[in-house]
Amino acid sequence: MNTTENLYEELRNALKEHQVSKNETLIEQHSHDESYHKPSAPDLVIYPESTEDVQLVVKIASVYEVPVVPYGLGTSLEGHTIPYDRGITIDFSEMNTVIEVRESDFLVKVQPGVTRSQLNKELKKYGLFFSVDPGADATLGGMAATNASGTTSVKYGVMRDQVRDLEVVLADGEVIHTGSLAQKSSSGYNLNSLFVGSEGTLGCITELTLKVYGIPEHTVAARASFPTVDDAVEAVVSILQAGVPVARVELVDEPSMKQANMFSATNYKVKPTLFLEFHGNEPGLKHDVEFTKEIVEDHRCDDIHFEEDNAARNKLWEARHNLAYAYVHGNPGKKLMVTDVCVPISELAGAIKHAREQVDKLQLNGGILGHVGDGNYHILLMMDLSDSQEVKNAEHLNEQIVEYALARGGTCTGEHGVGVGKMKYQQKEHGHALQIMEKIKLALDPGQILNPHKLVHQRREKS
Amino acid sequence: MNTTENLYEELRNALKEHQVSKNETLIEQHSHDESYHKPSAPDLVIYPESTEDVQLVVKIASVYEVPVVPYGLGTSLEGHTIPYDRGITIDFSEMNTVIEVRESDFLVKVQPGVTRSQLNKELKKYGLFFSVDPGADATLGGMAATNASGTTSVKYGVMRDQVRDLEVVLADGEVIHTGSLAQKSSSGYNLNSLFVGSEGTLGCITELTLKVYGIPEHTVAARASFPTVDDAVEAVVSILQAGVPVARVELVDEPSMKQANMFSATNYKVKPTLFLEFHGNEPGLKHDVEFTKEIVEDHRCDDIHFEEDNAARNKLWEARHNLAYAYVHGNPGKKLMVTDVCVPISELAGAIKHAREQVDKLQLNGGILGHVGDGNYHILLMMDLSDSQEVKNAEHLNEQIVEYALARGGTCTGEHGVGVGKMKYQQKEHGHALQIMEKIKLALDPGQILNPHKLVHQRREKS
Repeated sequence: MNTTENLYEELRNALKEHQVSKNETLIEQHSHDESYHKPSAPDLVIYPESTEDVQLVVKIASVYEVPVVPYGLGTSLEGHTIPYDRGITIDFSEMNTVIEVRESDFLVKVQPGVTRSQLNKELKKYGLFFSVDPGADATLGGMAATNASGTTSVKYGVMRDQVRDLEVVLADGEVIHTGSLAQKSSSGYNLNSLFVGSEGTLGCITELTLKVYGIPEHTVAARASFPTVDDAVEAVVSILQAGVPVARVELVDEPSMKQANMFSATNYKVKPTLFLEFHGNEPGLKHDVEFTKEIVEDHRCDDIHFEEDNAARNKLWEARHNLAYAYVHGNPGKKLMVTDVCVPISELAGAIKHAREQVDKLQLNGGILGHVGDGNYHILLMMDLSDSQEVKNAEHLNEQIVEYALARGGTCTGEHGVGVGKMKYQQKEHGHALQIMEKIKLALDPGQILNPHKLVHQRREKS
Repeated sequence: MNTTENLYEELRNALKEHQVSKNETLIEQHSHDESYHKPSAPDLVIYPESTEDVQLVVKIASVYEVPVVPYGLGTSLEGHTIPYDRGITIDFSEMNTVIEVRESDFLVKVQPGVTRSQLNKELKKYGLFFSVDPGADATLGGMAATNASGTTSVKYGVMRDQVRDLEVVLADGEVIHTGSLAQKSSSGYNLNSLFVGSEGTLGCITELTLKVYGIPEHTVAARASFPTVDDAVEAVVSILQAGVPVARVELVDEPSMKQANMFSATNYKVKPTLFLEFHGNEPGLKHDVEFTKEIVEDHRCDDIHFEEDNAARNKLWEARHNLAYAYVHGNPGKKLMVTDVCVPISELAGAIKHAREQVDKLQLNGGILGHVGDGNYHILLMMDLSDSQEVKNAEHLNEQIVEYALARGGTCTGEHGVGVGKMKYQQKEHGHALQIMEKIKLALDPGQILNPHKLVHQRREKS
């Protein structure tokens, strides 16, 4: 028997039969994510049902020195879950229980395989909601691993702001907790924030305690359309600088509005549009909405439409969340590349103008949208991978967008993470700090079995 | 010449004369903090004027293998700045420039010796403010090092939430940046949050980029008094659970109200009191205030007094901030011990009840107060250090308070930090995670010269 067969046998003996698979369909399913990144298959896929199962798998993997790649739903856009060195993929889909809702503490304890929509369905019973909403209905484990964010981050913050505690299985199979149930702490180094966004390179998340919020007393959503993207972006900057506490403010450009209408069967105006939302008490919110109306009108807004009822509001945000799928669906055979820089808000208008110029110059098929209240925007590009010139142009665009952001104090990824796609920018963005990250990686995973070739470069080659 | 003299000569040659001191008064001044912790003198005090100066000092210290202790204003309550192994204290008081206000980005860049009141004086010119306000007028470098917080954290978050980027001199004298100017990022491990709260054990902070806020359109402050502390705490829990976005909610018990009146020349009712503040637009705020009035009345509030003008509001918060000094001033010859646990909000009423019972049982002289909106409260104890029974009782109380909090998912320190005072609870609070912290410490400071004997235990003894 070769090593993989030995490993397979050992895992089969340690776990239940259906938890260990080398079924070809499953292997293929775990070889890619939702992006253009090159697929690569794992040797085995494991379905743990408990923290103890994960400990067992990691301990065996560490003896065999084979890579371990944690996997939520594979909705990554930067290749995080692709096992480029083969080995074991740990699929957390069977660890999908909402363990505890601590209603009066505004906390919830979940397993990593719970999805954001599953959690929100459960929380609704308590008048609560979980704020972070990336486009995909991702798992909370995956969202913590990449420090995901979404449309509400401008008010409620990103994934890192919601994580109160993580249970993590380390490279040696030991279990730690990274935080506590307290709202704040100055006790010890802050491991919570270190493990959030560590992309499975420091440990496998097996449980999360997350902050949740009361469903707001009153909510108003709106669509505001503008003659140009510039006008829309400048309106956002003015809204923020006026101190209006918007809960959501999303930019969708003209091509993207077209895709949204086709995919979501809406008939929204095909113009650069801001999707807005306000949360609060009724009188306060009325004041905020009036103020915002004045501001957008100063920026040549030609139509602002308020979504009065729940159904229309849900439709609006569904259309926004499904935009990446709208592009994929509208461009059969093509693959998705999404840029994801974040810049200081004062640099946003210039950055988006520059981005549009580059897309046009390179004759690419792409839309601009994003969480502009955070200074974070995306270009969605549909690429024909067999057209090497188009691929080259798309890569060139991504590089230019990143260079522009880094030169202005921004970051190469606002929310999608590094994975394999953004590794080449890490040295430029972090300088000597990258070496500190590598030291931390080596201190915590000396055998380098945890999600190798992601986020930080390896110091030595594995056989 | 002995080593200290060699070190002194070398530093004198490398820096300007007035930057290197072994003056006895200065040495004494840097041998203690504001607490009961045992003093210990450094060999030398250094006053850097630039990042390069700090690099130079750390590089020389690393050659001599002598400890380096960064020092802001010495307002620590857990012995953070006391150099128990002697060596070099780096006093940042000369690095006290507000470098840049990026008004439209709501960011400010400062040197570590800038105090919070100095920063707020500067920011006021721009209609901005910095939110974190510990009792002391501490330096921002010190506040970042301990992850300080204060009365506004219930709305705006703690120090860690405000830090966008730090410039840090590492143990080998190299300089890194831990973040960027972007509002959010998923690029690399989150070094920002690791260095915030690391208490000078991983590096010396030489520059901070911090988030600031627009001065709220409208502010209302109030004092609400209750028959018992229990009633007051239960009112807070109800306010939070009703989703009222309070900006401040502070508990001050009866003995503490008495001290406050004496020290601050106020004539506030001597009853368990909540100090409250609300920020927002006028109609929204009016709604919040009315709702809060109803809630506190449901909890037997017998008087709620609104501070209408700026001067009365400032007086209120000054009285609150000066409470520790009020106790010190009111108890000459005694030394201050402050407990600092933080518990989940559902456990707060029980925790404070337990605390009061223990204080009375041990016949200690102490008041209870705190940032109850975060679940964080303090017992201020004035101890006669020559009375060994009193000291023993105070230590016993502190232990009991911590045990109670840890058993309920809380933390041994909500905002004061570990220093030397809370090291004994680290194993119990963090379990195996403490070993991960120690690994990080060793990876980043293998010579263990940075603030030794603080936060994490040393692995090997230094000569």
